[in-house]
Amino acid sequence: MMRILVLHGPNLNLLGRREPELYGHATLTDITAMLDGLAKDLGVALDHAQSNHEGVLIDRLHSAMDTHAGVVINPGGLTHTSVSLRDALAATELPFVEVHLSNVHAREEFRSRSLLVDLAVGQVAGFGPASYSLGLRGIVEHLRPPHPI
Amino acid sequence: MMRILVLHGPNLNLLGRREPELYGHATLTDITAMLDGLAKDLGVALDHAQSNHEGVLIDRLHSAMDTHAGVVINPGGLTHTSVSLRDALAATELPFVEVHLSNVHAREEFRSRSLLVDLAVGQVAGFGPASYSLGLRGIVEHLRPPHPI
Amino acid sequence: MMRILVLHGPNLNLLGRREPELYGHATLTDITAMLDGLAKDLGVALDHAQSNHEGVLIDRLHSAMDTHAGVVINPGGLTHTSVSLRDALAATELPFVEVHLSNVHAREEFRSRSLLVDLAVGQVAGFGPASYSLGLRGIVEHLRPPHPI
Amino acid sequence: MMRILVLHGPNLNLLGRREPELYGHATLTDITAMLDGLAKDLGVALDHAQSNHEGVLIDRLHSAMDTHAGVVINPGGLTHTSVSLRDALAATELPFVEVHLSNVHAREEFRSRSLLVDLAVGQVAGFGPASYSLGLRGIVEHLRPPHPI
Amino acid sequence: MMRILVLHGPNLNLLGRREPELYGHATLTDITAMLDGLAKDLGVALDHAQSNHEGVLIDRLHSAMDTHAGVVINPGGLTHTSVSLRDALAATELPFVEVHLSNVHAREEFRSRSLLVDLAVGQVAGFGPASYSLGLRGIVEHLRPPHPI
Amino acid sequence: MMRILVLHGPNLNLLGRREPELYGHATLTDITAMLDGLAKDLGVALDHAQSNHEGVLIDRLHSAMDTHAGVVINPGGLTHTSVSLRDALAATELPFVEVHLSNVHAREEFRSRSLLVDLAVGQVAGFGPASYSLGLRGIVEHLRPPHPI
Amino acid sequence: MMRILVLHGPNLNLLGRREPELYGHATLTDITAMLDGLAKDLGVALDHAQSNHEGVLIDRLHSAMDTHAGVVINPGGLTHTSVSLRDALAATELPFVEVHLSNVHAREEFRSRSLLVDLAVGQVAGFGPASYSLGLRGIVEHLRPPHPI
Amino acid sequence: MMRILVLHGPNLNLLGRREPELYGHATLTDITAMLDGLAKDLGVALDHAQSNHEGVLIDRLHSAMDTHAGVVINPGGLTHTSVSLRDALAATELPFVEVHLSNVHAREEFRSRSLLVDLAVGQVAGFGPASYSLGLRGIVEHLRPPHPI
Amino acid sequence: MMRILVLHGPNLNLLGRREPELYGHATLTDITAMLDGLAKDLGVALDHAQSNHEGVLIDRLHSAMDTHAGVVINPGGLTHTSVSLRDALAATELPFVEVHLSNVHAREEFRSRSLLVDLAVGQVAGFGPASYSLGLRGIVEHLRPPHPI
Amino acid sequence: MMRILVLHGPNLNLLGRREPELYGHATLTDITAMLDGLAKDLGVALDHAQSNHEGVLIDRLHSAMDTHAGVVINPGGLTHTSVSLRDALAATELPFVEVHLSNVHAREEFRSRSLLVDLAVGQVAGFGPASYSLGLRGIVEHLRPPHPI
Amino acid sequence: MMRILVLHGPNLNLLGRREPELYGHATLTDITAMLDGLAKDLGVALDHAQSNHEGVLIDRLHSAMDTHAGVVINPGGLTHTSVSLRDALAATELPFVEVHLSNVHAREEFRSRSLLVDLAVGQVAGFGPASYSLGLRGIVEHLRPPHPI
Amino acid sequence: MMRILVLHGPNLNLLGRREPELYGHATLTDITAMLDGLAKDLGVALDHAQSNHEGVLIDRLHSAMDTHAGVVINPGGLTHTSVSLRDALAATELPFVEVHLSNVHAREEFRSRSLLVDLAVGQVAGFGPASYSLGLRGIVEHLRPPHPI
Repeated sequence: MMRILVLHGPNLNLLGRREPELYGHATLTDITAMLDGLAKDLGVALDHAQSNHEGVLIDRLHSAMDTHAGVVINPGGLTHTSVSLRDALAATELPFVEVHLSNVHAREEFRSRSLLVDLAVGQVAGFGPASYSLGLRGIVEHLRPPHPI
Repeated sequence: MMRILVLHGPNLNLLGRREPELYGHATLTDITAMLDGLAKDLGVALDHAQSNHEGVLIDRLHSAMDTHAGVVINPGGLTHTSVSLRDALAATELPFVEVHLSNVHAREEFRSRSLLVDLAVGQVAGFGPASYSLGLRGIVEHLRPPHPI
Repeated sequence: MMRILVLHGPNLNLLGRREPELYGHATLTDITAMLDGLAKDLGVALDHAQSNHEGVLIDRLHSAMDTHAGVVINPGGLTHTSVSLRDALAATELPFVEVHLSNVHAREEFRSRSLLVDLAVGQVAGFGPASYSLGLRGIVEHLRPPHPI
Repeated sequence: MMRILVLHGPNLNLLGRREPELYGHATLTDITAMLDGLAKDLGVALDHAQSNHEGVLIDRLHSAMDTHAGVVINPGGLTHTSVSLRDALAATELPFVEVHLSNVHAREEFRSRSLLVDLAVGQVAGFGPASYSLGLRGIVEHLRPPHPI
Repeated sequence: MMRILVLHGPNLNLLGRREPELYGHATLTDITAMLDGLAKDLGVALDHAQSNHEGVLIDRLHSAMDTHAGVVINPGGLTHTSVSLRDALAATELPFVEVHLSNVHAREEFRSRSLLVDLAVGQVAGFGPASYSLGLRGIVEHLRPPHPI
Repeated sequence: MMRILVLHGPNLNLLGRREPELYGHATLTDITAMLDGLAKDLGVALDHAQSNHEGVLIDRLHSAMDTHAGVVINPGGLTHTSVSLRDALAATELPFVEVHLSNVHAREEFRSRSLLVDLAVGQVAGFGPASYSLGLRGIVEHLRPPHPI
Repeated sequence: MMRILVLHGPNLNLLGRREPELYGHATLTDITAMLDGLAKDLGVALDHAQSNHEGVLIDRLHSAMDTHAGVVINPGGLTHTSVSLRDALAATELPFVEVHLSNVHAREEFRSRSLLVDLAVGQVAGFGPASYSLGLRGIVEHLRPPHPI
Repeated sequence: MMRILVLHGPNLNLLGRREPELYGHATLTDITAMLDGLAKDLGVALDHAQSNHEGVLIDRLHSAMDTHAGVVINPGGLTHTSVSLRDALAATELPFVEVHLSNVHAREEFRSRSLLVDLAVGQVAGFGPASYSLGLRGIVEHLRPPHPI
Repeated sequence: MMRILVLHGPNLNLLGRREPELYGHATLTDITAMLDGLAKDLGVALDHAQSNHEGVLIDRLHSAMDTHAGVVINPGGLTHTSVSLRDALAATELPFVEVHLSNVHAREEFRSRSLLVDLAVGQVAGFGPASYSLGLRGIVEHLRPPHPI
Repeated sequence: MMRILVLHGPNLNLLGRREPELYGHATLTDITAMLDGLAKDLGVALDHAQSNHEGVLIDRLHSAMDTHAGVVINPGGLTHTSVSLRDALAATELPFVEVHLSNVHAREEFRSRSLLVDLAVGQVAGFGPASYSLGLRGIVEHLRPPHPI
Repeated sequence: MMRILVLHGPNLNLLGRREPELYGHATLTDITAMLDGLAKDLGVALDHAQSNHEGVLIDRLHSAMDTHAGVVINPGGLTHTSVSLRDALAATELPFVEVHLSNVHAREEFRSRSLLVDLAVGQVAGFGPASYSLGLRGIVEHLRPPHPI
Repeated sequence: MMRILVLHGPNLNLLGRREPELYGHATLTDITAMLDGLAKDLGVALDHAQSNHEGVLIDRLHSAMDTHAGVVINPGGLTHTSVSLRDALAATELPFVEVHLSNVHAREEFRSRSLLVDLAVGQVAGFGPASYSLGLRGIVEHLRPPHPI
């Protein structure tokens, strides 16, 4: 069965506990459960990881090179600052979708620039926890287009 | 039943006939059919419109103010140039999702700036025709969150 | 009797119905009536037009070249994006005043740049519907300075 | 009776004597007389002051805090350079209108940026001495909207 | 016989009637006649269209996709602002030449940037009505190089 | 008979021998022959010069001041860097046309800026060797408009 | 006893009377008293001055050259605009600390640039009236480091 | 007793051993002792941490959310590059003061921009080790204003 | 006899007493004497004024309008910040020369921009006190070219 | 014997396994062997380290302060983003050479800016694995210039 | 006797023959004579050179290294574009004065930036041929201050 | 035997005689001898040329097209200004290495931008004369990789 890595960047461990007006009330555990449910429907398997350490995220991507078919990543603040994460995504050559809980294009100017997105299949932003489920659907459709239109 | 307006901007009438390496082989008719199918599953009704005329798109948005609950819009080239379309979206106060077939963040520099997106619920870009279905799911989840997480 | 063209750009047909905190409660009909009253006092005749279509506005300006003495224009969102409208105003060689209901200099950065204003007699912004009446007085004073000071 | 402060910044004491092609032939005395006449019609009282000293203008604004209802100000060259004048206007919390004799948006690039205007009710520019009378009408309409439309 | 579409953007209907110091005394009818004469010499057929409406120009380009071999276009003010026109030219995949009556590189700063020209075969600017005849010669040479050099 | 100077800047001596995908297969000798043929048709005389030395090009322009009626110049890389060449063209007061073999507006960003073009009659770019013949026609039409339109 | 000059720029005479949400409720008299108390504890003497006139502030700095050991200055709006004040601080060669009541780095963009700060010992911003006492402690520690660490 | 977290970013473990002309001779141990002494005077308790790892600093902030009342942070080089640290500070909602040993506004251009400071209570920079003691006083005054002025 | 006004801006009263490595050892009195000597040789009369107050400098320029033939001005820090001084110089229509003791083009970036110099006859910078004597010679040559060359 | 630290930043553990068209086929093990061979020839000893964690790299540099004479560093993506790494290199005061496998000046715009290079002895870029050997030769020549020329 | 090199850049051989409204009627021969006369008065000897070739100017500067005490240079268009000329002036270590006939600060934007001036003793601009004599006086005063003031 | 062209740009003839703190004490003759020695070791032949004339350098590159296998070039000041030299390097299609004696990335801002480097195999900067020997090794390794790793 096709495996997808779901990767969460810095501070996402706090989801649901802080700044709910910005990020909603769902915790990372809630999101993991929701995504596992959706994955079952879609016939794919998920692995989940979160870290506040850039290096840990890079290591995790490296180790997924030969075992996973794609990545759903919410890089958090690293979206805007990490060339190293970009290089890791480029080096693994894994198709990935960049997701954001909030509409990053409607916040501080510096959040509208992503160092990763031009390498991505696509980007989903602004739907709260649903950004993840839309992103998972998107990467799966990209990897396994269900029926021609 | 909740009605959603699906609005396509300039040149999208050519979908599937030109530049398939960029936009895929699906025609606007294909996309309309696919979305109507999905809408049925989601229990919402859709109206579709396409125009190469900015003014026609603005008029259509105005007429949807009292009849529709939300908008899925692919503004095409107007994304980057039309303050008038922005003002129309602001004036109607309809929640909307901005979708793009291609990953606009990976193309010409000027395509990464949207004059509309900071007013949107969210943005979906890069999944080909699936951007529309993800966008439709997104606006529906926004308007009618199906179950708490 | 001297004729003045009053021209309203995109979305101004919605005046008074949407975003009153930004644009006030007066409708376009109210403003037209107010201006006609003022015009009578000032001894000039007015023609009014509104369109959401850039092309229609340009056509209207062209047709005013030989019949009108000046223009009061609220170009709406086209203020910031339309070189074509600028060229139309330049080509007609009609003196014109640019008016805005809101204080465009206190809103989004892109609204402080007008592509038209350096061709204008002057600009009036921020007074709500009174911007139109001040603009009308301004163009009339410009065309027919009442008494030397 | 409502009192309005009319404040003129640096070099406006030379009005009518120098650069008439830019600023017209009316002197500051002429403008004062014209505005007093208009004020009488509008039922308001005016106080006038001019200075080439930024500090004097700031002191004058401070002393108007409790005695005046609004300000018509032509800040001259300080429009583009004085954060201190901006802070004074903000501190007094008096509604004010910024006026310019010439169309500042059609002159040197640096004149199109005002450090004050985003705090203002509105801006009137380009009508020569009539900019003052339009500005006075504007502040009065803002403070005492004469009749609903 | 090879057909070429000659397309004129906003305000070019006024040619010869306004701003002759900038655009010359030839009317659009004069230019059409001159180009038809030259086309006869060159052995090609022309179709001509002008509109002040961006949407009409896009529609006209779409309808030329299967019937014409190339385009000579003077996009007027849309040169600098229309991503939608750019997308239309890209989508039709028709070779085109961008022409301007005036030397756009010697006018306002914003006129030196064209949103279309990097897709064009080439650009001709500054020769008045002769820009059109040079542009027509250029597209014909591009499509049918007459003899090897 | 009217004399026109045809001036080629740095590296154009290599034409036809290097980078043909960018500049075509015609050599400078071919272009000279083609232009002489066209000049004969147009009833003008040509002088040709090429140099890789900015100073030599400037000297050549100086010496043409009293003997030539106009210049067709392909300044090569100096287009974007030489204020001295600009000053030479301004000082000679000779009408000139700037030509480029490739579409400079579709290449590196720095090639879209010309330090000369705002002094030129016009610019022709993108037609390969035909840019020269179109440029020659253009300067001749400018100097001797053949028949009124 | 070491003397320190405490200098307040434009509009600070209004402290405590206007915009308390931004600047707090303490008046300049309160701050002067508080600082005199702290100075006594620290064993230094203070002189205080406030002016809305840039020239007066410069004169005051000049006259302190031979009598004071350091300066605590809140330059108000002149922070961002006065090269003359900068030159006065440089010319006096007095060590100084720049203080701000509000966090200038969290307000309008132009407030984050100080024309003085690179000449200062340091900057304290954001603590309300406590910014002055921290600044006074800072300049005293700089001039007379109490005990080695 | 109120607890304050004192957090030191990358390279601050080297304090006192390297570049004393820039950062002084005090070691981190010296500063810790000095701050503990001051804390005792002020009646607060301190915890200290230093790391060269962004992720460790973020983890430490997370763990302080429910146990500390405020933070004194010297983010070192992360001041200018870490959106993740910014997000961590925002998420914890702890009041914090940003301190720098050197006057960051007088060094390289990139050091004058802080990604954190607009979220801070205030900033203290340039006083060497005294920046920490001033910062500690500042956060304590912010959390527990000692007596009204 | 032709009168020239010599005007010194802020901080120039300190000349010779502070920062001699930048401005030299000559005092303002020395410079005045030197210039009076040179003026005698040149057959012109001088008036001298210095102020740290922008308003006083503007007033002085106004009063020179009808009595002086030209101005030698060292505007000090106002060179880079005062639109009001610029407007005063423009309004008086007096020819003026801008002088600087130091080479302003070799100091801080902001000193290379002068808000006045494009209105000046010319600029002299970098020669210490000799900048004044060169500037005086320059304005006299401009006003009374001694003999044709 | 003189010791040199060879430090590899994020993602360089993947060398030779991914993107060989960009980085070549040599693995990090190959490069280490090659460098050890060259070091033997040059009479120096090497230590090698690689990490995807910025903090680990900083720690490694700190520990080399008293044991190594210089550093050859390929900072990977941290080249462009890490002020902390810059500060570590500055603090250790070790001479270092920055090397890149690819020609960073010919890739994305953001790769042409290095936050480290102005502190370096020099930079070598574009020679694949040979960049390391050239860099090692460079640092050795810098530390021990073999014979005068 | 002290020798000064007077160096003229591209196009200055045309002085007096072209664009007199910009550069005056004096020829280079006139200026040479005028300067030789002044040099005699000042007790210095001059050598003069002009070239349109950057390389010739650099060669001439190199050969003056051991024979001349200073340089008066009008670099013409190279002022704004030649790093090589800058490097030559730096390498010779000759004190030099940069002169311009016209007020370069009042012309095209690109003329206000000089690549040389921060290395110069000073700059004189705007006085026509008198710029040279003022520049010569300036360099002589710099090299041989006549009497203390 | 493979021939390499070693090309030196403007002012490098002065090497070893001027500014040794920046460029060292080795003369061009020393460097030539050193490189010839190294070339012998590497089994390649060198030709050397230096010129202060851009045109001469371009001519030399052209003449090397069919005789040399690669180029080591120190373009001096032309690095940052010469599009013509760039075009010459592109036209010859010779692999080249760009070398600089000093660390250009640590000097004036304008020296960090090279107009040539994105066409180069690589760049070596900062090692004094050793930059040339490293560059020669680099081009030889590029042209003839000695043994696989």
